[in-house]
Amino acid sequence: MDGDRTPVTVIGLGRMGSALAGAFLAAGHPVTVWNRSPEKAGPLVERGAVRAATPAEAVAASPLVVVCVLDYAAVHHLLAPAGAALAGRTVVNLTNGTPMQAGEAAGLVAGHGAEYLDGGIMAVPPLIGTPRSLILYSGSPEAFARHRTTLEVLGTATHLGSDPGLAPLHDLALLTGMYGMFSGLLHATALVRAAGVGARDFAPMLSSWIKTMADAALPRIAEYADTGEHGGPAGSPLAMQAAAFANFLDTGEELGVRPDLILPLMRLVERRVADGHGDEDIHGVLDLLTTDPKENSAP
Amino acid sequence: MDGDRTPVTVIGLGRMGSALAGAFLAAGHPVTVWNRSPEKAGPLVERGAVRAATPAEAVAASPLVVVCVLDYAAVHHLLAPAGAALAGRTVVNLTNGTPMQAGEAAGLVAGHGAEYLDGGIMAVPPLIGTPRSLILYSGSPEAFARHRTTLEVLGTATHLGSDPGLAPLHDLALLTGMYGMFSGLLHATALVRAAGVGARDFAPMLSSWIKTMADAALPRIAEYADTGEHGGPAGSPLAMQAAAFANFLDTGEELGVRPDLILPLMRLVERRVADGHGDEDIHGVLDLLTTDPKENSAP
Ligand SMILES: NC(=O)c1ccc[n+]([C@@H]2O[C@H](COP(=O)([O-])OP(=O)(O)OC[C@H]3O[C@@H](n4cnc5c(N)ncnc54)[C@H](OP(=O)(O)O)[C@@H]3O)[C@@H](O)[C@H]2O)c1
Ligand SMILES: NC(=O)c1ccc[n+]([C@@H]2O[C@H](COP(=O)([O-])OP(=O)(O)OC[C@H]3O[C@@H](n4cnc5c(N)ncnc54)[C@H](OP(=O)(O)O)[C@@H]3O)[C@@H](O)[C@H]2O)c1
Repeated sequence: MDGDRTPVTVIGLGRMGSALAGAFLAAGHPVTVWNRSPEKAGPLVERGAVRAATPAEAVAASPLVVVCVLDYAAVHHLLAPAGAALAGRTVVNLTNGTPMQAGEAAGLVAGHGAEYLDGGIMAVPPLIGTPRSLILYSGSPEAFARHRTTLEVLGTATHLGSDPGLAPLHDLALLTGMYGMFSGLLHATALVRAAGVGARDFAPMLSSWIKTMADAALPRIAEYADTGEHGGPAGSPLAMQAAAFANFLDTGEELGVRPDLILPLMRLVERRVADGHGDEDIHGVLDLLTTDPKENSAP
Repeated sequence: MDGDRTPVTVIGLGRMGSALAGAFLAAGHPVTVWNRSPEKAGPLVERGAVRAATPAEAVAASPLVVVCVLDYAAVHHLLAPAGAALAGRTVVNLTNGTPMQAGEAAGLVAGHGAEYLDGGIMAVPPLIGTPRSLILYSGSPEAFARHRTTLEVLGTATHLGSDPGLAPLHDLALLTGMYGMFSGLLHATALVRAAGVGARDFAPMLSSWIKTMADAALPRIAEYADTGEHGGPAGSPLAMQAAAFANFLDTGEELGVRPDLILPLMRLVERRVADGHGDEDIHGVLDLLTTDPKENSAP
């Protein structure tokens, strides 16, 4: 079906949806747009996009339909009434959601005779259309193969597998990894600021240190997650690491910096030590993060 | 006083102290050692080190005295009785501690007529003696200049200023930054593991993502810390970021992964949004980390 210039519909013209539609326009694709608040379509219509009157009309206009709204409640709200118009389309849903929500949306879309791809956008709007934007996809491999060239207009496109939940799973895992890392940057910066040391002077040291330590720690954490193997004696046993924790708390109190962001890991490390794992490295904390899952249906 | 081969004393022969003494021996320095449990000196004596009978004898043996024990309580316990032997020496204390503890140790050492350098070792024992080991120093600039060549035997040596608390401050800030980052790696890995996705397959994506996002976020966080400036409109406003938080919690619950490690930052972001800062970026969380300091004497 595809040539180089597949017609594309973009539904949802917030910051991200507008960037997506703009990138398709810049690459020469015929673009149809719809947004709940119609005025947001204005700048795109000026650049050549066609404004659809309803979601159903928008869906009918193109074989490839990209949806990017706030959440899955909005996705269902939009797609349910589009009903019959969906038949034969490929819906690419780039709204942030959970693996389970992706599975439900895939079911809804398939029920209307359309193919479904879920996606996680690992980029901010200004990066869309550059190779520095990474978009993770999952769901129908055929739909991905058919529309790959078009989707690559938005940035690097990686297909993770046919289970539609895989893209949101990876997306959420990467985002939570990022928020943990941000917790560290913020706490460390708060400490130096409180001590009157220039945070911009400190930043290059902090950046290089956390990258070095990520490279040092992640292979062992990942190996332990996959195999349960400890990978030999720890270079920095937890019991030794825990000896420094009082210094973190004392210095924070001294300088007036709350420990909120680093306390949970400290407590989990202390629990590992108390449980007799003081000679192991940080990877064992993984076992304390797992509870009984509510259900095991996710990807 | 110094030639290329200053005699060095190393007090404390745990994993780290033994690595330090070993590096000095490998570089051809005359090395005197002391450890509370004397048997740990054995391997170093075989390589040519001299075993001192008491801390005072160890201090008397060399102009440069490196101390690396578990904590500052042990440092005081060792140095106080060494008393008069300290006069004219340079004491380099590489024990992990707080800025306040460093100041106290500097006072004790100065009271005995010796010069003091505090240090933070940003490396694990196997890296000692390679350029990949970074050691941060603070305290007497003259002592650092005099012994710099010798200290560089241990790795890259950086002097941060004459306030002895600066090295422990940077050390603790870097370590807490690392634990935040570890929190993210662990939570993200726990999520993919619980979903049955290979953590080793996921690791390169996670590693590259958190490095990219550290580079994206840290300059603005540091600028805000130094200047209080917001740096223009946020690329990813907090209110939009917070919309994804329910997905983190739902997916964690679904898969059986506790939110402990990422919850505190989520709560602080939600508080910033509730306080009317939903259009700003993550940097503003810094303001929620600051309490009234107990005192303002630290560096
Ligand atoms: N911005 C980023 O940095 C970024 C990065 C990666 C992923 N994402 C994801 O991309 C998605 C969109 O983000 P954004 O930045 O574009 O957000 P945004 O600027 O806040 O836009 C939200 C969009 O959703 C629409 N919407 C909300 N509720 C709706 C409903 N009930 N019915 C129909 N439309 C509704 C809004 O329509 P109105 O204009 O009528 O309000 C608007 O088009 C989110 O899932 C986000 O997590 C964003
Ligand atoms: N290992 C690392 O990866 C690493 C990295 C950076 C910084 N550090 C820092 O380096 C310092 C030493 O760490 P390490 O790895 O060598 O620890 P370690 O292997 O546990 O050794 C602890 C040392 O402290 C001595 N000690 C403890 N209490 C004492 C006391 N009351 N009186 C006299 N000596 C006492 C021990 O003597 P005994 O042999 O008699 O028990 C031993 O020599 C710590 O402050 C640590 O934070 C370590």
